Parts: sequence; C-alpha cells; structure tokens
Amino acid sequence: MSIQTLAKQFVEMCNQGKNFDVMHTLYAPDIVSVEASGQETAGQAAVIEKSKRWAAINTIHGEKVRGPFFNGANQSSGQFAVHFTFEVTPKATGQRITLEEVGVYTVKDDKITREQFFYEGNW
Amino acid sequence: MSIQTLAKQFVEMCNQGKNFDVMHTLYAPDIVSVEASGQETAGQAAVIEKSKRWAAINTIHGEKVRGPFFNGANQSSGQFAVHFTFEVTPKATGQRITLEEVGVYTVKDDKITREQFFYEGNW
Repeated sequence: MSIQTLAKQFVEMCNQGKNFDVMHTLYAPDIVSVEASGQETAGQAAVIEKSKRWAAINTIHGEKVRGPFFNGANQSSGQFAVHFTFEVTPKATGQRITLEEVGVYTVKDDKITREQFFYEGNW
Repeated sequence: MSIQTLAKQFVEMCNQGKNFDVMHTLYAPDIVSVEASGQETAGQAAVIEKSKRWAAINTIHGEKVRGPFFNGANQSSGQFAVHFTFEVTPKATGQRITLEEVGVYTVKDDKITREQFFYEGNW
C-alpha cells in the first residue's frame, strides 16, 4: 500500500468520526505518539488509551480533516500531514470551542509508526 | 525570542504577503528546505531563489495562513507548523487553482533552520 492510499484512508475514516478504527487498523504495534508538550507515548494500546482519556473529558460535536498533504509519498515509507478542526466542549468548562491542530504522520511498511501533534496556544 | 514569538511573526508577515521578508529575516544562513518531492535546497540564498522561481511562474492572488501550531514551543528550539492556502494561476495553464499545503518549521537560536513542505496530490 502506498503512503497516499493509507493517508487517504486515514482522512476518510477520520472525517467519518472513526478515529479509533484508524488507530486499531493503521497504527503500528510500536507507534510513538508525540504531544505538543513533547511528551511521548509508546505502543498502540497506550496511544489508544490516551485518546480515550481525551474523548472522555470532552464532548466532541464534530471533526473536519483537511488533507492529506504529502512529503516523499512516492516511497513506501515517508510522512504525511493533516489539518484537524475539532468542535468540542470540554466537560470541565462547558464552553464550546474550536480546536485546530496539525498532525504529522510517519509511515513504514503500511503502518503509522509515529504521530506528532502541533497545537495552537501555549504549551 | 521564543518559538511562539517567532512563529506568530512568521504567520503575520505571510498573511501580509511578506514571504520574502520572512526568508530574509527569520531564515538561518544554512537553512535546509525540503520539498514534498524530498528534494532538499540548502542555504538562505538558494532557498530564496527557489521561491522566486515559483513566484515567477505563478500569479499569486492571495495567501491565507492558519496557525501557528506548536510542538515543544516552551523551549528555545523546536518546531511549529502552519497550514497555507494559496490562490494562484499558473502562467503555464492560465487556470486559477487553490493550493493547500502544510509547512513544518524547525527553529534554533531564533532562526528557522529547516522547512519541510507537505502538498496535496501526487509527488
């Protein structure tokens, strides 16, 4: 599978709200997830757990994903980027907000081996 | 200067169409620019020349920059990302198009030392 095929599948599934299906099917067992703070989480199960914790403390109204954007997509390994816009209400505040972020994904052997997030605001 | 200060200046200047001022003032002398194809260009002068060539073959109607988005912005070195939307007419075709791309920028000692572009489409 090319990076383009994988990345388009990624965006399509995210735009359908199937983020956890993406993680289960496209994330490598040893994926490393890097938050905007620089904190790293290693391993598919731990990364999924981290996302579940985020989903548990926010009400997610909608998600739009722009992209995928490619770098070196002709190879079987390389990177792609996407731009996310989330409409969420943090349960702690009850105030609906728009969150924008960029994700950069590294692909190797048909799996995502690294995700790195870039957020707005102070970190 | 923090990465946040630099990145906000970057976005503000780009949104004013001052992309070349950004390159002259914020790019390190030994900056490396990585195109979506994987091709690398090294050195501020060579990178500016590359951008001039692009500007010469396109009529640029507008540019909108989303972000900056941060990763590890509390440090004096790290990365930020932006999402560009260009409205351009390639002189070769005469057909106006919208180009979206993501740029990931590495900052060290108050200068941008690396830029990596992610484009839509086939590369």
